[in-house]
Amino acid sequence: MTYYFPESRQYKDLVSGVHARTFWGENLMLAVVDLDAKAVIPPHSHPHEQGGIVLEGEVEFTIAGETRMLKPGNLYIIPGGVEHSVIVGSEPAKVMDIFSPVREEYKY
Amino acid sequence: MTYYFPESRQYKDLVSGVHARTFWGENLMLAVVDLDAKAVIPPHSHPHEQGGIVLEGEVEFTIAGETRMLKPGNLYIIPGGVEHSVIVGSEPAKVMDIFSPVREEYKY
Repeated sequence: MTYYFPESRQYKDLVSGVHARTFWGENLMLAVVDLDAKAVIPPHSHPHEQGGIVLEGEVEFTIAGETRMLKPGNLYIIPGGVEHSVIVGSEPAKVMDIFSPVREEYKY
Repeated sequence: MTYYFPESRQYKDLVSGVHARTFWGENLMLAVVDLDAKAVIPPHSHPHEQGGIVLEGEVEFTIAGETRMLKPGNLYIIPGGVEHSVIVGSEPAKVMDIFSPVREEYKY
């Protein structure tokens, strides 16, 4: 597979209100994530480096203790092992996360 | 750095009509790429795995000989070493490419 059309793939719910559709190659996993309004991803970390872009809505990120409200087009890169959390704004949001290496537990 | 705001960063032109703004961590490079209408990226390959998402416009990709017209929200994952090319539609387009490992020649 080379081309992927997320709208034709089932969701995998990661935590309450956080609905992902993941796609992966050898080193890269792309996760298109739909977030319910006011959804919360509690502080956590993982050894995988994580990048991402906000596609829709407004999302408050806290990465290594630094909080920013991110809007469409804003990017983030989170080193492996660094604690981060997310609080979605008053409207639903969408982001694309990228993980390297691939998060095996997010395959489905 | 953790947060990145592409609109405040200068472009690096990759080929004619292809204007990138790149950001990188350890394993990941994110490249937000503005493409002029009808811009052409000739067939090429590189050892880096490449993922991506179309953000705006319509872009015809050919990856390993398979051609598809991609629209916003469509994804692609190109294994390292696989030939690919791009022809932009009649309107400007925007994509986000992701490379792993980081493409050193795209740092600036």
